[in-house]
Amino acid sequence: MNTHISSDRLRTLFRPRSIALVGASDKSMFSANAYCNLADFGFADRTFLVNRRGGVVHGQPSVATCAEIGRPVDVAFMQVPQSGTLDALTDAAAAGIRNAVILSSGYGEAGPAGRQAQRELVEHARSLDMLVLGPNHLGFANFVDQIPVTPVASLPRKAGSVALLSQSGASSAAMLSFGTMVGADLSYMVTLGNEAMITAGHVLDFLVDDESTRAIAVFMETIREPEVFAAAARRAAAAGKAIVVLKAGSSELAARTAAAHTGALVGDDRVVDTVFRELGVIRVDSIEDMMITASAAASLGRLDAPGIGWVSVSGGACDIIADRADDLGAVVPEFSAQTRQRLTDVMPDYGTVQNPLDTTGAAIIDPSLFTKAIEIVADDPAIGVVAAVSSVPWEGDGPYAAQAVLNGVGAAAPATPITLVNQVLQPISSYTTSVLDDAGIGHLIPGLRQSVLALRNIAWWSEVTRNAAAPATAEPVIVSETAPRRGAWSEATARGVLAQAGVGVVPSDLVSSADEAIAAAAALGRPVAVKIASPDILHKSDIGGVVLDVEGAEAVADAFRRVIDAAAEHAPDAPIEGVLISPMRDASVELLVGVVRDRQWGLVLAVAIGGVFVEVLDDSALATVPVGVDRARGLLERLRGGALLTGVRGRAPADLDAVAVAIARIGDLAAALGDDLESLEVNPLRVDGAVIEALDAVITWTAPAVTEEE
Amino acid sequence: MNTHISSDRLRTLFRPRSIALVGASDKSMFSANAYCNLADFGFADRTFLVNRRGGVVHGQPSVATCAEIGRPVDVAFMQVPQSGTLDALTDAAAAGIRNAVILSSGYGEAGPAGRQAQRELVEHARSLDMLVLGPNHLGFANFVDQIPVTPVASLPRKAGSVALLSQSGASSAAMLSFGTMVGADLSYMVTLGNEAMITAGHVLDFLVDDESTRAIAVFMETIREPEVFAAAARRAAAAGKAIVVLKAGSSELAARTAAAHTGALVGDDRVVDTVFRELGVIRVDSIEDMMITASAAASLGRLDAPGIGWVSVSGGACDIIADRADDLGAVVPEFSAQTRQRLTDVMPDYGTVQNPLDTTGAAIIDPSLFTKAIEIVADDPAIGVVAAVSSVPWEGDGPYAAQAVLNGVGAAAPATPITLVNQVLQPISSYTTSVLDDAGIGHLIPGLRQSVLALRNIAWWSEVTRNAAAPATAEPVIVSETAPRRGAWSEATARGVLAQAGVGVVPSDLVSSADEAIAAAAALGRPVAVKIASPDILHKSDIGGVVLDVEGAEAVADAFRRVIDAAAEHAPDAPIEGVLISPMRDASVELLVGVVRDRQWGLVLAVAIGGVFVEVLDDSALATVPVGVDRARGLLERLRGGALLTGVRGRAPADLDAVAVAIARIGDLAAALGDDLESLEVNPLRVDGAVIEALDAVITWTAPAVTEEE
Repeated sequence: MNTHISSDRLRTLFRPRSIALVGASDKSMFSANAYCNLADFGFADRTFLVNRRGGVVHGQPSVATCAEIGRPVDVAFMQVPQSGTLDALTDAAAAGIRNAVILSSGYGEAGPAGRQAQRELVEHARSLDMLVLGPNHLGFANFVDQIPVTPVASLPRKAGSVALLSQSGASSAAMLSFGTMVGADLSYMVTLGNEAMITAGHVLDFLVDDESTRAIAVFMETIREPEVFAAAARRAAAAGKAIVVLKAGSSELAARTAAAHTGALVGDDRVVDTVFRELGVIRVDSIEDMMITASAAASLGRLDAPGIGWVSVSGGACDIIADRADDLGAVVPEFSAQTRQRLTDVMPDYGTVQNPLDTTGAAIIDPSLFTKAIEIVADDPAIGVVAAVSSVPWEGDGPYAAQAVLNGVGAAAPATPITLVNQVLQPISSYTTSVLDDAGIGHLIPGLRQSVLALRNIAWWSEVTRNAAAPATAEPVIVSETAPRRGAWSEATARGVLAQAGVGVVPSDLVSSADEAIAAAAALGRPVAVKIASPDILHKSDIGGVVLDVEGAEAVADAFRRVIDAAAEHAPDAPIEGVLISPMRDASVELLVGVVRDRQWGLVLAVAIGGVFVEVLDDSALATVPVGVDRARGLLERLRGGALLTGVRGRAPADLDAVAVAIARIGDLAAALGDDLESLEVNPLRVDGAVIEALDAVITWTAPAVTEEE
Repeated sequence: MNTHISSDRLRTLFRPRSIALVGASDKSMFSANAYCNLADFGFADRTFLVNRRGGVVHGQPSVATCAEIGRPVDVAFMQVPQSGTLDALTDAAAAGIRNAVILSSGYGEAGPAGRQAQRELVEHARSLDMLVLGPNHLGFANFVDQIPVTPVASLPRKAGSVALLSQSGASSAAMLSFGTMVGADLSYMVTLGNEAMITAGHVLDFLVDDESTRAIAVFMETIREPEVFAAAARRAAAAGKAIVVLKAGSSELAARTAAAHTGALVGDDRVVDTVFRELGVIRVDSIEDMMITASAAASLGRLDAPGIGWVSVSGGACDIIADRADDLGAVVPEFSAQTRQRLTDVMPDYGTVQNPLDTTGAAIIDPSLFTKAIEIVADDPAIGVVAAVSSVPWEGDGPYAAQAVLNGVGAAAPATPITLVNQVLQPISSYTTSVLDDAGIGHLIPGLRQSVLALRNIAWWSEVTRNAAAPATAEPVIVSETAPRRGAWSEATARGVLAQAGVGVVPSDLVSSADEAIAAAAALGRPVAVKIASPDILHKSDIGGVVLDVEGAEAVADAFRRVIDAAAEHAPDAPIEGVLISPMRDASVELLVGVVRDRQWGLVLAVAIGGVFVEVLDDSALATVPVGVDRARGLLERLRGGALLTGVRGRAPADLDAVAVAIARIGDLAAALGDDLESLEVNPLRVDGAVIEALDAVITWTAPAVTEEE
C-alpha cells in the first residue's frame, strides 16, 4: 500500500524551473501573499498567473488557462476553492504540469464527505499522472534556490542546512520564526497537510539526496505510510543526516483489542518511541528543542565519541549542567587521568578539575586558559564534542565588552567538534553572529537545558547510527500447526509451537482422567499445577480452572475434578482438550513476553517483569519484530525492575544471554505464525539462572472462533 | 543557630538613602562599572567615593575614610581586596555605617584558610553591629528606587514586580538578561554569594514585606539557615507571593550513615523536594522556567481553581499542549456540559469542543469568536486561568498584521485571570509590548512548553498555599523508656515504644528457653516466627537469627536452639535479651516506614512499599516530621506501587486512613524520642485491610553503644 515516489520526481516539485499560480486573485490574501513572496525572492519572472477571467492580477498580466502559458511549467500552485480543484488539475495536466500544490481545506480533515473528496482528488491526480502536495496546507519554501511556494509571511532570505517538515500549517510559521531566531537557517520548509499523496517519508527521502540539507526537523501528528518513513529514516541515518521529530499525540493511548496484559503495555505512542529508537530518529517534545537540536546536528555532524566535555566560566552553570545531564541522561564522562593532569597544569590552584569544568573567573582574566582547557578536554578519548559555556550578547552594536573571552574559545583548535553555549535561550541576532564571526566560533546553542538535551540527543544519534545495521532478521521457525488459525489456541497448543521455536516450556502432561492425572503427578514426583486445557478459556485462574501446589494422589484427583467442574460451570460450551499436569516451580523471577500487532508498524514485542510489577507498575520495554538477540538483551536493561534479574535477595543471577535468546525466539515464532496472528503472550516466562521456561502461554488469531451455530 | 535579621533592618541595606563606594578606584573595572551604574541610575549625588589616597576617582572627588564623608550613609559598598576588608569595616562602622556589601572572594569558597577568614569577617562585623551581604558576590540592584549597588553591566532601567535572588554572581547577569527579555521585570536583584550573615531566607522575609514585589525567583545551590528559609516561605505563601526556585545540586545524592534502607531512600535532594512541596515553593529546572514562571505568578496571582483552560487558533499547538500537560501533570479539565453547550453555540460546525479548544482558523477571520470562547471557558467552574494561544511578533514596527486577532483576545472580559501564550519562546520586545498594549492584553508567556509548566506550577502553588495550614503538629506520645539511649535498641525494646505510640505490633513473647518457646508457640496455636532478640544484632536474618514458619514443638525447640547458636557464632559478644516468638502472618502488602535525621531539616519520614519494591525500585515518598494524618495519606497516594494497597489480585483493599494514622504515629514517636534519635525504622509494617501491624522494628541513637571495654 506504500507509494513509491522517487527523489528525481520530487525534485521537479521542490526545485521547479517555473510555477503557475492558479486561481491568482487580488481578492485572495493567500494569493497576494504568495505572489508577494515570489516577487520578493526574485522568482516573479518564472511565475505565471492564471485566472479564469484573465486580466491584470497582482499588477501583472494573467492567462485564463495553464495551456495558454505556452512554456514548460513544473508546479501548479493552486489557489482555487475545493469545488474547482479537479477541473484546475485537468487544465494543469493538459499544459504538461505534473505537480500540484493544493492549499484548500475540506478534505480528509473534514469528516466523511471530506474524506470522499480527498479520495476523488487522489484518483483524479493519479489518472493525470500528477503529484499532489497537501491538500489543507500552506505550501513549501525552497530557500536553497530561493523559491517560495507558500503564503506564509515574513520568510527569511537566508538559506541554511536544516529542512523543516510540518503537518501543521498553522504552526509552521512559529517554527520557522523560532528557527530563524536561533540560527537554524533552513534549506526547505515543507508543510505537508493531509499528505494525500506525498507523505513525510517521501519528502525525507528527497532530502537525504539533497546536498544542501544536513539535518531535518519534522513536526507530525500522524505517521502515514510507515514503511516509506522507515526506509527514508534508514537512508538518512546512513547518510549522517539527523532527523529530529516533534511527534504530537503522545497523550492519546489508543485502546487495544489485543489479549491480556500486553495490549495495555503497548500504547500507540510507546510504539512510536520504539520505532524511532530503532531507526535512530531523535524525538523531542517542544518546537524549541526541535529547531535547536536540528541546527546543532546540522552543524556538528556525527560525533566520534558519546561523551560531552563541558568548559564554563560560571560555577553556577556547571551545577545546572550536571543536574540536567543527570535528569536527561546525557553522557558527561569523568576525564581521563591524563586529561586531569594536563588540566591541573593549566588551571588556577583553587579550581577543581572535573567535568563540567569550571575555569572560574580566571578564564575571563586570561582567555588563553579557555583555549587550552578546550583543547585538552577535546583530546580526551571519551569526549566527542566540547561545549564551551560563555555569555554572548544579542542586542547591541559596536565592540562586545567580553569579546576577548569569546576569542579565547575561538582560538581553540580542538580535536573534536565544538559548540559555544549561552546560559539562556535568546536570539542569535545579526549582532550575535558578528561577535561569533569575529571570534571564529562556528556554532552556538542558546540555553543550558537546551544544550544538554541537544547534545545528549546528537550523541545518542551518533552512536546508534554509526554502524547502522540492517534491521534484525528473524531466525526461521518451522511451525507444524495443530489447530485451526481462528479464535484462540489453548495453552497446550501454544506450548507445542513454543517448543518448535526452541523456547523452553515447563514439562506438562495432557491427561483426560483423574487416574491419568495421578500417574502423571507421581511420575513428576513433586507438587504439581493442575490446569484446565481449552482454547475457549484464556483466563483459567479467573474461573477456578487452575489449582496450584497439589501433592498426593488424593489431592491430585480432587484438583482434576475441581478444574473440570469449574469449566463445566463457567464455560459449559468450551471444548475441553483435557487437563494439564505440570511440576510446580520455585518462586523465581517471572517475565511477561507478549507480541501484539500494531496497525501501523506490525508485530511489536513487549517484555515486562511479571507478577505485581506488570499489574502495578508501567514497567515494560518494547521492540519491533524481528527482535534479534542483541535488542532483546537491550530490552532487559531498559526495565526498571531489571535488577531483579541480576540476583537480588540471594537468588542466582539470570543468564541474560539465554533470556535474550528466548525472547528473540518468541518474536521469531510470532513472525513465523504469519499475518493472521493477533497476539502471542508467554506469561510467565520463568527465569531461574540459565533455565528459561514458559509456564503458560496463549495465542490468538484475528479470525474469530467458529461457534457451534456457524 | 538561626540568625534573626528584621525586615526593617534589611530595608536600610536594600533601600539605602546613600552609599559609600569604599575602595573606589579607576584601576578597578568592578569599581568603574559600579560607579557607572550608580551614575546612570541618577544616584551619583547620594554616592560617596572613598579611596585611601583621596583625590579624583571616576572623575569625582573622593575622601580617604568613611568618617570624612560627614553625612549619614546606609551602605558601605566595598571594592577593597580581602586583606583590607576588616579595616575597611572598622572605618565604615566608625562613620555610623551599619551595612556592608562585600564583593571580594577568598572566603568560605576557598578552602580552610578562606573559611577561617570568613569566620573572622563575621565576628568582626558582629562586634561592630554591622550586617554583611556576601562576600564573594556581585552586590544587588534595587530597581524600585533605582539604586544599583553592583558592578553587573547592562542593567535595565524598568522596574517590575519579580525579585531575583542568586547565590551565583556569574550567572546572575544571564538570569537578569533573560528575565528582561521575557518581560520578567525586576523589583530587586540580590546576589547572595557565601551568605556569611544574610541568607536567602532573610532576603525572602524582607521581600514578603516589600510592596513592589509580587513573586520571587531564587537560584541557589545550598539552603543555609533552613528554619529562616522555611519561616520566610510560609510568610510568602500566606501573602500570596510565589517563590520559584532553581535549586542546583540535585545530582549530588549525599551518602547517609543512617540505618538500613531508609538512608538510601532519603537523598539530600529528595529532602529538598519534600520541604519545597510542603512549603508551597515551586521548583523548576532551568533559568528560563524560573524567570517565566515567576513573571507569570507575579502577573496572575493566586488562581481560584486549579484547571487551565486553553483556547488556540492552531490545532498543532493544541496537540503539543495536550501532550505536555500529560507529561508534566498540568490540570487541563474537561469542560462542563454547560461550557460545552455554550461553546458549541458559537464554534463553527466542524470544530471539536474540548480542552484545549481549537477555534480553528475561524477565529482569525472573526476574532470575536476568540473573545467569546475565552469568556465562556473562563466561566467554567473548574477553570482558574485561561491561556489564549496566538502568535505575537517580537521584531517589527508599525501596525501588526494580525492585530485584529489579538484584539479579539484583549476584548474578552473573562471571569478568571488570562494570559496570552506565544507558540515559541521569543523576546517580549518593546514592539511586542506595544502590540499587546494596543490589544489590551496584560500578560504573555512565550512558548508552549514553558506556558504549560508555568501554569501547572502556579495552579499547584495556588492550591497548596490557599489555606496555608500551620505545619502539622505532633500528637503527644508518652514514652517510658526501657533501655539506654545509645547504639541501637533491639526489636523487643522498639516494639514496646511503638505500642506506647499506638502503633499496632504483632503479638510476641520474649522467651529464654526452648520450653518457654514451645509453650508460647502452642498458645498462639499456629506457625510462628522465631527471632533472636539483641540490641547488637540489627540484621538478624543475615546471621541466621530468624527462622520463619515454624510449626510443632520439636521444630520450635530446634529453631530456638538454631537462633541462639547463630548469635553465639556470629555475634559472640552481643547481649542476648532472649528469643521472640511471634505468629506468622499471611502474605500481604508490607510497607517500610522509616524516619531518619536530615542534617538540615531534622526528622524526615519515608514510606515505601516493602519487599522487592524497596530493593529494586526507587519508589518511596517523604515528609518532614511531624507528618500528620493528612500528609501521611498523601504519601501513600504518591507511591508508584500504591495501587497494591487498593486491592490487586483479589486482596482486600487497605484501610488507607488506618495506614495513615499508623504512619503519622510512627513520625510522632520519632519526634517524642528526642534529639538524640538517629533513626527509627519499621520494616515491615504489615497492612491487611484495617489491620496494621509492625512485624519488625529497629531504633538507633546518635550516641555510640557502650562497649565492654569502656
